[in-house]
Amino acid sequence: MEKRIYNLNAGPAVLPEEVLLEAQKELFALPGVGMSILEISHRSKTFDAIHAEAKEGIKKLLNVPDDYSILFLQGGASLQFSMVALNLMPPKNKADYILTGSWSKKAMKEAKRVGTVNIAASTEEGEGDKKYFKRIPKQSELKLDPDASYVHFTSNNTIYGTQWKSEPQVGNVPLVCDASSDILYKPIDVSKYAMIYAGAQKNIGPSGVVLVIIRKDMLERSQDSLHTMLNYKIQAENDSLYNTPNTFGIYIIKLVTKHLLNNGGLDKMYEINKKKAEILYNALDNSGGFYKGHADKDSRSLMNVTFNLPTPELEKKLIDETVKAGFAGLKGHRSVGGLRASIYNAFPIKGVEELVAFMNDFQKKNG
Amino acid sequence: MEKRIYNLNAGPAVLPEEVLLEAQKELFALPGVGMSILEISHRSKTFDAIHAEAKEGIKKLLNVPDDYSILFLQGGASLQFSMVALNLMPPKNKADYILTGSWSKKAMKEAKRVGTVNIAASTEEGEGDKKYFKRIPKQSELKLDPDASYVHFTSNNTIYGTQWKSEPQVGNVPLVCDASSDILYKPIDVSKYAMIYAGAQKNIGPSGVVLVIIRKDMLERSQDSLHTMLNYKIQAENDSLYNTPNTFGIYIIKLVTKHLLNNGGLDKMYEINKKKAEILYNALDNSGGFYKGHADKDSRSLMNVTFNLPTPELEKKLIDETVKAGFAGLKGHRSVGGLRASIYNAFPIKGVEELVAFMNDFQKKNG
Repeated sequence: MEKRIYNLNAGPAVLPEEVLLEAQKELFALPGVGMSILEISHRSKTFDAIHAEAKEGIKKLLNVPDDYSILFLQGGASLQFSMVALNLMPPKNKADYILTGSWSKKAMKEAKRVGTVNIAASTEEGEGDKKYFKRIPKQSELKLDPDASYVHFTSNNTIYGTQWKSEPQVGNVPLVCDASSDILYKPIDVSKYAMIYAGAQKNIGPSGVVLVIIRKDMLERSQDSLHTMLNYKIQAENDSLYNTPNTFGIYIIKLVTKHLLNNGGLDKMYEINKKKAEILYNALDNSGGFYKGHADKDSRSLMNVTFNLPTPELEKKLIDETVKAGFAGLKGHRSVGGLRASIYNAFPIKGVEELVAFMNDFQKKNG
Repeated sequence: MEKRIYNLNAGPAVLPEEVLLEAQKELFALPGVGMSILEISHRSKTFDAIHAEAKEGIKKLLNVPDDYSILFLQGGASLQFSMVALNLMPPKNKADYILTGSWSKKAMKEAKRVGTVNIAASTEEGEGDKKYFKRIPKQSELKLDPDASYVHFTSNNTIYGTQWKSEPQVGNVPLVCDASSDILYKPIDVSKYAMIYAGAQKNIGPSGVVLVIIRKDMLERSQDSLHTMLNYKIQAENDSLYNTPNTFGIYIIKLVTKHLLNNGGLDKMYEINKKKAEILYNALDNSGGFYKGHADKDSRSLMNVTFNLPTPELEKKLIDETVKAGFAGLKGHRSVGGLRASIYNAFPIKGVEELVAFMNDFQKKNG
């Protein structure tokens, strides 16, 4: 069997080995079907069952109430930036955006094409080219418009390594969340949200599918004038099958959700995720300042651990050495530099422990 | 090894067994990479090479000139129906559509949201619920507007089993083609087209990727006001990587194009496709009227062979018996009924011969 390394990429990211092995086993032909998952009709009974299991897996894991539709669309979270605004902003054409990183800003950029955006809060700091984020705003910082069509926030910020500990309180205004980089990392109360969307390529599956969980009353906002593929109501009425969906991606989501359900669900994942993050953040905090976490302590992400070394030269050296030692993806995002360890659901505790041992050893030799 | 059956589905459709075996072998971890194709970053050198090979494969197979961009986007041909109009219709906001089937009509429906559509020709026949298409228009039937932003046509009509033998002559007006269901079935002269798009799930790969081949001067039509993900210019400037693409889908396209190049390219494919279609159409024509082709003879598709039996009961009986005998997907599209054999590039001649033998036997017993 081909040797595997520790994958700390921010996304696409590591998937459970059991899922990869099952998908590999079935790739030539689904058992009893005689065709590959890549070849079966999206209107076949075989795919219907796979699709239903994927939806049911999401529903069970997140305890999604019955008055929500679960959709698997294409175009990633980036197309959702537009679809959210196009569908949900009318008729008032104004919405609140909470800015905590680059993805929030990109979401806002598309919303501005549709209507008026109120920046309910921004934690951006710095000047000019050196702007950055390092924290989640406090509830008291939010300047919310009680008449907004919705409030949009990004639950986890991959680039800066910050994460909301709980949802912002927004009263009766519908709450919309880009949960691309932390969905399924812990149980959440879906009923607090009007809509959650998430690119699959972190905790759910491969790239090319975006999960949309939307409360059914929100679908009434979608206007007939919208382009068909951009219309949530039409996508929901057609159960994500208005046209051919990413059938393979949905199949992998079926396998990932089944794997999570068979391994303790999200309570168990949360316990493991807390443990992994604790090991890594403790290593930073106990390094005497050699490894310096980027995010404020109370805003730290359990998914993406961002940090710096005393010099860019040492950062490069560590990255080069980790690659040789079998850890991939530690280089920080090009817009902030430094290092980033993405430790999503499928990243093993053992990998975190080995990374910390490697970092401690590196500090001894270079500190 | 899991047994495979003959897959006559219209799409997603049969893929080359060699491609499935290679993908299966590598799915757990790409050789020398230590991560699955499902897990690697779209900004990694490994993916860069895969992406480049997929583009190069398309470029070589279709002999795409250098002044065209090759993009792999999401949302299928259905999202292209909107993107074509949104990007290419301005500033004149009028375009010609040639209607030869349900997909042409869907493309036109989205274009009407953007500007004025002139129906340059329609071969629709029948009344009310019984409307249908069975032929490609003659050049003399086209009522083209020399001032149109573009002319749109659908090269092959999966539902009705009709296909253009050569492109419509449109003078200096840019020609845009939905080639979803026959791209790569024979060599074409790409320089005749301003743009070609094709959902991957017939001759190119799995669902979830749409190939766009667009002449670079057309990109100048994309206006800054367009939503980012719907903007061809931005997608081309970012080499399909504005956001995370369907990495697995692009990987399979790499394998499929390599397979075609290693097996004689499109000249060879065309030779085989002609032979397969000839065997099947001859069987219809030599059945004494028991099997009756739906499409006019001069409009017949080499990809989708549509036909009827004397009664709906016999059609159902034949479909049921073929399923038991190991042929999947022969049931015609719900909108036209009857039978449809989709014999794309990867469908083997042997399968066509066995199907014809089965049909001859069925006729003897039931004719």
